[in-house]
Amino acid sequence: MINLSIIGSGNVGKHFIALVQNSKDLNLIQWLSRSESCYQKIKTTSDFKNIEKADVYVICVSDSSIHEVSKTLNLHNQLIVHTSGINHFNILCDNNRRGVFYPLQTFTKENKTRELEIPICIESEYNEDIKLLIDLCKYLNLKYYQVDYEKRKILHLAAVFSNNFSNHLYSIAYKITKNNNIDFDILKPLIQETANKILLLEPAKAQTGPARRDDMVTINNHLKLLKNDDYRNIYKTFTQLIKDENKL
Amino acid sequence: MINLSIIGSGNVGKHFIALVQNSKDLNLIQWLSRSESCYQKIKTTSDFKNIEKADVYVICVSDSSIHEVSKTLNLHNQLIVHTSGINHFNILCDNNRRGVFYPLQTFTKENKTRELEIPICIESEYNEDIKLLIDLCKYLNLKYYQVDYEKRKILHLAAVFSNNFSNHLYSIAYKITKNNNIDFDILKPLIQETANKILLLEPAKAQTGPARRDDMVTINNHLKLLKNDDYRNIYKTFTQLIKDENKL
Repeated sequence: MINLSIIGSGNVGKHFIALVQNSKDLNLIQWLSRSESCYQKIKTTSDFKNIEKADVYVICVSDSSIHEVSKTLNLHNQLIVHTSGINHFNILCDNNRRGVFYPLQTFTKENKTRELEIPICIESEYNEDIKLLIDLCKYLNLKYYQVDYEKRKILHLAAVFSNNFSNHLYSIAYKITKNNNIDFDILKPLIQETANKILLLEPAKAQTGPARRDDMVTINNHLKLLKNDDYRNIYKTFTQLIKDENKL
Repeated sequence: MINLSIIGSGNVGKHFIALVQNSKDLNLIQWLSRSESCYQKIKTTSDFKNIEKADVYVICVSDSSIHEVSKTLNLHNQLIVHTSGINHFNILCDNNRRGVFYPLQTFTKENKTRELEIPICIESEYNEDIKLLIDLCKYLNLKYYQVDYEKRKILHLAAVFSNNFSNHLYSIAYKITKNNNIDFDILKPLIQETANKILLLEPAKAQTGPARRDDMVTINNHLKLLKNDDYRNIYKTFTQLIKDENKL
């Protein structure tokens, strides 16, 4: 049994709260939040000085608030972890034992019901604390990876390309279809399958399309259709990069 | 019951063959292929002059071969469709009734078993032929959309952004992680969820990340980590476009 407290009530905090409540091996001591609790049955406080004893405190607040929140907590020599991909554990106030519990996933309040696979990147200031973080992942039924700060930063960067930027490509496709009175839904199965393919294949080997085939007729037809300069530049850049990849 | 013949044995042709065999309302007359058949039980011929009577002939060959193949077929006043996203039906030889049967999906030989949702964009030269194409979709258990050439070209372009280019973003993320001895598998659940989110939310509303939050500290940290000029340019372009989208 691990006694834990969660600090923060954004999407990450709420997802963890839901997972903790599903685990028989975890005991939620407190949920600290500046705002009122949505969950009536959970002991919530917005008084960050009034903090009870737990085995681990998981800070799920925005990057810019982590340091301030960790200073406010009235704790000494306790295990405190943040959930940020880009920050070192030493952003946490140093009167405690520090660590990282970074969920490499994108959370939305709209996705409350679907089961979400959440890989956790863990790190601890002291070796003796890593076992508790591993157990925490096991009790939450989440896969974990021991990742140091340098590698975690790289993962965070790679996540921006594969998540944030691919979502923006969906957004461009949405605008292109909408501007032409076409139902964006037609593209959804393709988007799903593109993400599914990399479960079977290395991305470069899953590549298809006119750039992959070096099909200049289609590429030129597409460039003629594109009126937006930014989108034309993206089209040209990606086409060239995919062509270069073919040569490897 | 529709009698049909399929011409071509690439990924599209093979996927259609498998679907046709699963339908009790479709009768496969012939499978025409320059190469030998992999399926022993199907009547296959590589002699394109030796073509039997069917209700519809579905040409599943590469864009650059459609015209030649349609000329070779010894047919007159028959319904012939191609499966290309970017070509007008008039690329087909004009001694037949022409149409389009464009599957907006990415096919891989690796994905033989998983069920694949395949939206079909249909179009016919003569109004009286559209019903057969609609029935063909129904018998294949595929969703169909009546889309004219202008809209189909736009869809093909939007597919390049949402499929080909997002796959290349996965490829960049793969290279970034691999160059730093990090297991790319850690990113796979995030990639899946990014594609799943747009089933619930418009892409712009699903956007997360440092550019969405206008988090210049993280953006500058990422740019310091990126040594490849192309990837830096992509990072800057997408960051600016996402920031611009925030202002709308």
